[in-house]
Amino acid sequence: MPPIHGYDEVFTTMPTKDVDKRIEGLADLAGGLYGGDFLLTWNHSLENIRAVLLVAEALEDMYRAGLSTRVFEGGLAVSNFRDKSTRTRFSFASAASLLGLTPADLDETKSQVSHGETVRETANMISFLTETIGIRDDLYIHEGHEYMRAVADAVTEGFRQGVLAQRPAVINLQCDRDHPTQTLADLLHLKHTFGSLEALRGKRLAMTWAYSPSYGKPLSVPQGIITLMARFGMDVVLAHPPGYDLLPEPLALAQRFADETGGSFTHTDSMEEAFRGADIVYPKSWAPLSVMERRTELLRAGRSGELDALEHECLARNARYRDWECNADMMSRSRDGRALYMHCLPADITGVSCAAGEVTADVFEHYRLTTYRQAGYKPFVIAALILLTRCEHCEKTLAAISSRATRRVL
Amino acid sequence: MPPIHGYDEVFTTMPTKDVDKRIEGLADLAGGLYGGDFLLTWNHSLENIRAVLLVAEALEDMYRAGLSTRVFEGGLAVSNFRDKSTRTRFSFASAASLLGLTPADLDETKSQVSHGETVRETANMISFLTETIGIRDDLYIHEGHEYMRAVADAVTEGFRQGVLAQRPAVINLQCDRDHPTQTLADLLHLKHTFGSLEALRGKRLAMTWAYSPSYGKPLSVPQGIITLMARFGMDVVLAHPPGYDLLPEPLALAQRFADETGGSFTHTDSMEEAFRGADIVYPKSWAPLSVMERRTELLRAGRSGELDALEHECLARNARYRDWECNADMMSRSRDGRALYMHCLPADITGVSCAAGEVTADVFEHYRLTTYRQAGYKPFVIAALILLTRCEHCEKTLAAISSRATRRVL
Amino acid sequence: MPPIHGYDEVFTTMPTKDVDKRIEGLADLAGGLYGGDFLLTWNHSLENIRAVLLVAEALEDMYRAGLSTRVFEGGLAVSNFRDKSTRTRFSFASAASLLGLTPADLDETKSQVSHGETVRETANMISFLTETIGIRDDLYIHEGHEYMRAVADAVTEGFRQGVLAQRPAVINLQCDRDHPTQTLADLLHLKHTFGSLEALRGKRLAMTWAYSPSYGKPLSVPQGIITLMARFGMDVVLAHPPGYDLLPEPLALAQRFADETGGSFTHTDSMEEAFRGADIVYPKSWAPLSVMERRTELLRAGRSGELDALEHECLARNARYRDWECNADMMSRSRDGRALYMHCLPADITGVSCAAGEVTADVFEHYRLTTYRQAGYKPFVIAALILLTRCEHCEKTLAAISSRATRRVL
Repeated sequence: MPPIHGYDEVFTTMPTKDVDKRIEGLADLAGGLYGGDFLLTWNHSLENIRAVLLVAEALEDMYRAGLSTRVFEGGLAVSNFRDKSTRTRFSFASAASLLGLTPADLDETKSQVSHGETVRETANMISFLTETIGIRDDLYIHEGHEYMRAVADAVTEGFRQGVLAQRPAVINLQCDRDHPTQTLADLLHLKHTFGSLEALRGKRLAMTWAYSPSYGKPLSVPQGIITLMARFGMDVVLAHPPGYDLLPEPLALAQRFADETGGSFTHTDSMEEAFRGADIVYPKSWAPLSVMERRTELLRAGRSGELDALEHECLARNARYRDWECNADMMSRSRDGRALYMHCLPADITGVSCAAGEVTADVFEHYRLTTYRQAGYKPFVIAALILLTRCEHCEKTLAAISSRATRRVL
Repeated sequence: MPPIHGYDEVFTTMPTKDVDKRIEGLADLAGGLYGGDFLLTWNHSLENIRAVLLVAEALEDMYRAGLSTRVFEGGLAVSNFRDKSTRTRFSFASAASLLGLTPADLDETKSQVSHGETVRETANMISFLTETIGIRDDLYIHEGHEYMRAVADAVTEGFRQGVLAQRPAVINLQCDRDHPTQTLADLLHLKHTFGSLEALRGKRLAMTWAYSPSYGKPLSVPQGIITLMARFGMDVVLAHPPGYDLLPEPLALAQRFADETGGSFTHTDSMEEAFRGADIVYPKSWAPLSVMERRTELLRAGRSGELDALEHECLARNARYRDWECNADMMSRSRDGRALYMHCLPADITGVSCAAGEVTADVFEHYRLTTYRQAGYKPFVIAALILLTRCEHCEKTLAAISSRATRRVL
Repeated sequence: MPPIHGYDEVFTTMPTKDVDKRIEGLADLAGGLYGGDFLLTWNHSLENIRAVLLVAEALEDMYRAGLSTRVFEGGLAVSNFRDKSTRTRFSFASAASLLGLTPADLDETKSQVSHGETVRETANMISFLTETIGIRDDLYIHEGHEYMRAVADAVTEGFRQGVLAQRPAVINLQCDRDHPTQTLADLLHLKHTFGSLEALRGKRLAMTWAYSPSYGKPLSVPQGIITLMARFGMDVVLAHPPGYDLLPEPLALAQRFADETGGSFTHTDSMEEAFRGADIVYPKSWAPLSVMERRTELLRAGRSGELDALEHECLARNARYRDWECNADMMSRSRDGRALYMHCLPADITGVSCAAGEVTADVFEHYRLTTYRQAGYKPFVIAALILLTRCEHCEKTLAAISSRATRRVL
């Protein structure tokens, strides 16, 4: 396969070491996130999003330069994973450690949550010395985001009434609607691959469904990608087989953002069409919305027998689209055959993790390290979200870190 | 409902910010807990208990003023929860983080404890760099406290023989007898609600059983409340239906303390009688002692079939007392209908967490934020217990924190 | 029983407090471990091993003198326990806390590891801000070490390609071949018991099998002990019943090391013979190699029914050697009846943790505290491995800690 766009030499386009410039750029942007949460990228201004990227870059610069970026002298960073997680779990713990917070996981099986404790009560009980609460809740469509908002409302009330000495920021680590820590890391990866946010204008990104022998994968990544990337003037193409619809709201937002920024948003049912001339491809499986809705119903009702039937039906439906695979032939349709392949990992790799999956082994291997690099932005994105929500003058905090210049290893 | 005593404006009676005065007050009190454990409040002098409150208040003052209260540069705070926990678990982790310790949970299912390791061996194995061991062991009546003493004896031996470089303090996070971190937080809540410890003299506190559709709830909270509050000259009333007895020792101690302090201790089988004229009500379910004893026997013998039968029998017995509910009518019997409602949470709320429970939704909602505030003292109480058991001159430690004046957020 | 060699007064032979001398001694030794891993002691030079001991001693000296030994301002210490653990788990967390790292446990049941994620991917995903990865993988013979090497190769690739900003050191917390953090702690214990490494020359150490009513115990401790102790000129005797063979490689290495250092390596099938004249005895059960191989096969194939049959067969075989017990009579055969008894714990103690086991209650009780002390070196050994693999000039790091002289408790 031909060399990858922006990776003729692997990872030479690393973040510039110009921390001061980033801090300067931040002066006009920071402050908008202070005291709040980060749940859906589309509810945040472009200024806020640019601020997240700048802070994440500044933190990574300073980390790679061997500086301590400790900001907190104690306090908890609580995580609540209501679904399995490796990279987000470790990214969250890493971000906490990077800033001086103590990670604490709320394992609902070990708590009294199941014993009639209400969400707003639990939210306050875990927050007396807590700076941030990261939540993954992606199993139930139409519910994950609502849960996060309930937690956010509860800590707002607790803080206003003096119960909490500080209001922890709720950070969405993946819900039914969006996966902002993933898509912001993805955006940072694109910025560094293509050189700047401005360079993304007019680039064609294909967010396409791909075949997987599993079912029930969340819709949050494709929804998050089409909405976020459309805000940077990209030509976003969404492709999936009939029936694999996303939620209506992100579809409408992607269109609106594209209209506003002079980009475009196209919707097709052909993977080949989406890949044609693409600069970036993001082939990834997800479940049909209707299946997620029935699944949520059955899970809530504890009707596990019917869950098996639903899974069988869904896998059979998936199997009709086994040709939605990212292989060398498909890649050759991309611009100069050199599109950047992206994935949130783990990918279903044909012949490696399953008999037939989202991507062939040769294509994945060609891009494997770039997908690792893509994932590597996530700890810094999470740390940036913590910092921007919890520090009022983030540019001053970063300047203080930089001028203090404490080494992170003695 | 009428406004709550001491909460005409919610949480205006916050701790005064006079840290220096608290430290000064501590000079005569501190030292008595150094090098030891904290298992049962009734084994500690009033000086020790006053010291705990002062240190907890000083820590909360400094925390709310934005100061770092880090005392340790590393070291473990080990927790061992042999029963489920949310608020105590997070309170313990928060206290550890507040002081600079690393929380480490001993999950017995992941350890070799089940493989014939003795208690005294495990106690030493987890203690080489440990400053405190917090234990919850409330499932087995007549056993939890004994387990904690065995751990305490083991680390005493290990320390004396040079195996351990320091002796970790064992802190009771709820046993079969007492729940000191809860009741000390409760006492702090009362102090701040009524203005001072002296103001508690002559106040009528009703510790009463309440109906719950669950069974097997520990006896430690009512036992801990009647013994601790009787030491401050309060008129303590204990109420429960026939058969829901507590252990004899705390009953006798409550009487003795009441006699010594000029308060009173009354025992009744009428909830209405207990609520009459009460300044404070604490309606909470617990299991009959005889049921806890049979349950412990069956659990130890692995006779799970009989456990179900016991549960059925016990729930049927509970159901005879469904009218033991804290509702508006019951509250109206309290002094001016304005008693402070307390609960250790989570409460069984009628129509919210169960069909019929300990408290009606309207009463609970009226007091909900005060119960959150009540819970909010716990992290600082635990931190105070760690500090007083591990630092010989706690007043100097606090003075050093105060004069150092490091911000907890950069 | 007569007083224990080197313990006439218990633990008077503690590490000397001469930190400066240790740091000086380190100047010629350190550096060899920097940037690498620690998987098998026999792949490391004697210089490296001496450096580990010196750093562990310096850290324990400074810890016992009340100094903070914090080296890192944040960063993760990831553990991955693929088998149960108490003391190694807490030793690892303690070492992390001692150095300023945040412990983070990779619980594979909560991660996506089971969902087709490859080892090299997971290794990178958990490493973006990670200084060390400690792994226990001892369930599968011929596999544990391979797994650790795969992780090590993956982080090497990730670091070289710029995916990782630093290369975490992989530390073997027990595999199918070796258990270096145990055997290095054991060596330190011997050094302090007998006064010096030089004093170990010519000492007779009996590493013998002992009866246990359980099966499937790893071979790593006996393999690790015979290879490591043979490098210090000891007379190492390995004893086990027919069929309880170890892997061929460590057997060959033990012989080679003995030849090189002027010690000896003897192999016998008599416990009595091994104990005769021994200065040190290490009686401990392990599974026959052939059983471990069949067990690994069955576990991999999910043939759990046959596992039960294998267990029955193996326990029946064990039962033929119930007289391989370390009792007073056996101990009396050792030199002056005063050999040092060692165990990695937990021991199967006759009448305490099982009806019949590796050691009688009276022998174990006589040595119990010395086995605790033996275990107490492990946190410092792990910390030394982290420091030597992650800090290029460890002697300078230790000197900086010493001259900084920050108290670890305020």
